[in-house]
Amino acid sequence: MPSAPPLVLTQGDPSGVGPEIALAAWMALRAEGPPFAIIGDPDHLSRLGERLGLTVPVRAATPDQAAALFSEALPVIDHGRRIAGAPGAPDQADAAATLAAIETAVTLVVDGAARALVTNPIAKHVLYAAGFAHPGHTEFLAELARRRSGVAARPVMLLWSEQLAVVPITVHVALARAPALLTQALIVETGRIVAADLRARFGLARPRLAFAGLNPHAGENGAMGREEIEIMAPAIAELKAAGVDAVGPLPADTMFHAAARARYDVALAPTHDQALIPIKTLAFDTAVNVTLGLPFVRTSPDHGTAFDIAGKGLARPNSLIAAIRLADRLTRDAAR
Amino acid sequence: MPSAPPLVLTQGDPSGVGPEIALAAWMALRAEGPPFAIIGDPDHLSRLGERLGLTVPVRAATPDQAAALFSEALPVIDHGRRIAGAPGAPDQADAAATLAAIETAVTLVVDGAARALVTNPIAKHVLYAAGFAHPGHTEFLAELARRRSGVAARPVMLLWSEQLAVVPITVHVALARAPALLTQALIVETGRIVAADLRARFGLARPRLAFAGLNPHAGENGAMGREEIEIMAPAIAELKAAGVDAVGPLPADTMFHAAARARYDVALAPTHDQALIPIKTLAFDTAVNVTLGLPFVRTSPDHGTAFDIAGKGLARPNSLIAAIRLADRLTRDAAR
Repeated sequence: MPSAPPLVLTQGDPSGVGPEIALAAWMALRAEGPPFAIIGDPDHLSRLGERLGLTVPVRAATPDQAAALFSEALPVIDHGRRIAGAPGAPDQADAAATLAAIETAVTLVVDGAARALVTNPIAKHVLYAAGFAHPGHTEFLAELARRRSGVAARPVMLLWSEQLAVVPITVHVALARAPALLTQALIVETGRIVAADLRARFGLARPRLAFAGLNPHAGENGAMGREEIEIMAPAIAELKAAGVDAVGPLPADTMFHAAARARYDVALAPTHDQALIPIKTLAFDTAVNVTLGLPFVRTSPDHGTAFDIAGKGLARPNSLIAAIRLADRLTRDAAR
Repeated sequence: MPSAPPLVLTQGDPSGVGPEIALAAWMALRAEGPPFAIIGDPDHLSRLGERLGLTVPVRAATPDQAAALFSEALPVIDHGRRIAGAPGAPDQADAAATLAAIETAVTLVVDGAARALVTNPIAKHVLYAAGFAHPGHTEFLAELARRRSGVAARPVMLLWSEQLAVVPITVHVALARAPALLTQALIVETGRIVAADLRARFGLARPRLAFAGLNPHAGENGAMGREEIEIMAPAIAELKAAGVDAVGPLPADTMFHAAARARYDVALAPTHDQALIPIKTLAFDTAVNVTLGLPFVRTSPDHGTAFDIAGKGLARPNSLIAAIRLADRLTRDAAR
């Protein structure tokens, strides 16, 4: 019987913490799994392991060899490019390798040779030199998904932890712009994607969505802002009419304590900080970024390249390990 | 030796949960203290205790009798007005009594007959009939303080818990208005009051203030909003030049986990939800509202009148008890 397809990790920026937390994740997971392969430069990963004093045998492998050899060595799918940069000192010469790892990963997962995608952090400014022209990692993945699968993707960022899952409805925009961006159409589209993917990927028959208001106390009946009345309530009504279990808009400050969290599966909040503050307060090390709305499962650790600590053995692999475990959980049916 | 002045509680809206949580707080604190008196209607409190099946002897008292009799009965400073409304059914005829309790309390604390003020929740819409024309409870207290003490007060809202203390720099305003209200002068004034009162009241020789940015990732060097660069950094520099230990602006989402919280005494955030989400996530039942910038100590439970559960024995006294204990702690020197 052939092995189930493995999870694939991208190397991320090779001078960031991605490669070293991948080595540490292999050490933590080699016995129990889930098996994964990393797309990168085998020599680079071997050198890095030696530098950090980690006993990680590295083995070049094809995706279908990865699961069988995982307990003995870290399987590396060689993207054919050698890494130039040192830890903490990103080199623009490595941009092509970073992008190649992502492109290869998407091809593998769209073709069914990999089960799901776990991406290590990249640094956009390093990639500009190689012609990278996307607003971010996720938008690049959506474009690759469209090219490889032919299906248009509208990515939605979910932050997930055992305690709480959140979706920011507006994400990386100045706060002054957020109220104008919060349209009924955006709320409805986001809610539909979240509901569909929680059903399809997380096995929730009827996911419960709770929306936070934009304003303090959710506007207090219009006394502090009217977006709840004019935009959010109609959007939530539209979602309900479409069969989505949605409540709100609720005052954001009183919806994240333990008893309140028990009433929903995911909280959707108008602004970045309303969504990310509570999850990072509760689950700073173990929150996982999940991209919904793609034709495959993609998770990633909830931190950046952390160039300042790269190569020093200080980076904690917890969030990457949580991302690998969640990617496994969300695709376990495909692995059977 | 005369007893130390007691803490005084106001009745709050008599149809809200204030009176019943005061009865419950007496039961919890009668043995160990700190002693407090409540300003209200003794008959109303007796009736309410009977209705709820609480064994709380109620005794009309003057402030200087309160401490001595506290272990045997709840001391009530009679404001001379009889309560008409039933629990859950606020009556505008009680507005004058609600306001009289607050006015009496301020007079007592300014005159030194009470040590500190703990206010129960009021409902502004009930008070309008009695000519109440202040934006809120705190502004009314500031005006009374000015009238009674002659000192102009600029109140600043601090939410305090064992885990975290936060100050929202803008408070009850629509989110769309917050960026324009966030001026350098407002940040500096707020920071100075917070630093001065944490020193004077909380016994911190050099309080550490941490400021959250307005925008996601604190603007990421101007990529998502320039308020951090143009307004917040100069304000923080001005505070530092004035001898205040201040850091920031920091990304709001990564400053509230346990390791990050250990680095400061109070977090100041530009918007209501950035400040209140983390404290209510961590300490929903036990967070206390403290008004800084007044010529006396005022605390209050961090919830409203809760008319929907009043008189049903469902209201939890935890936040009021925490407010009483904190008022005691902040004025313990005065009690010796």
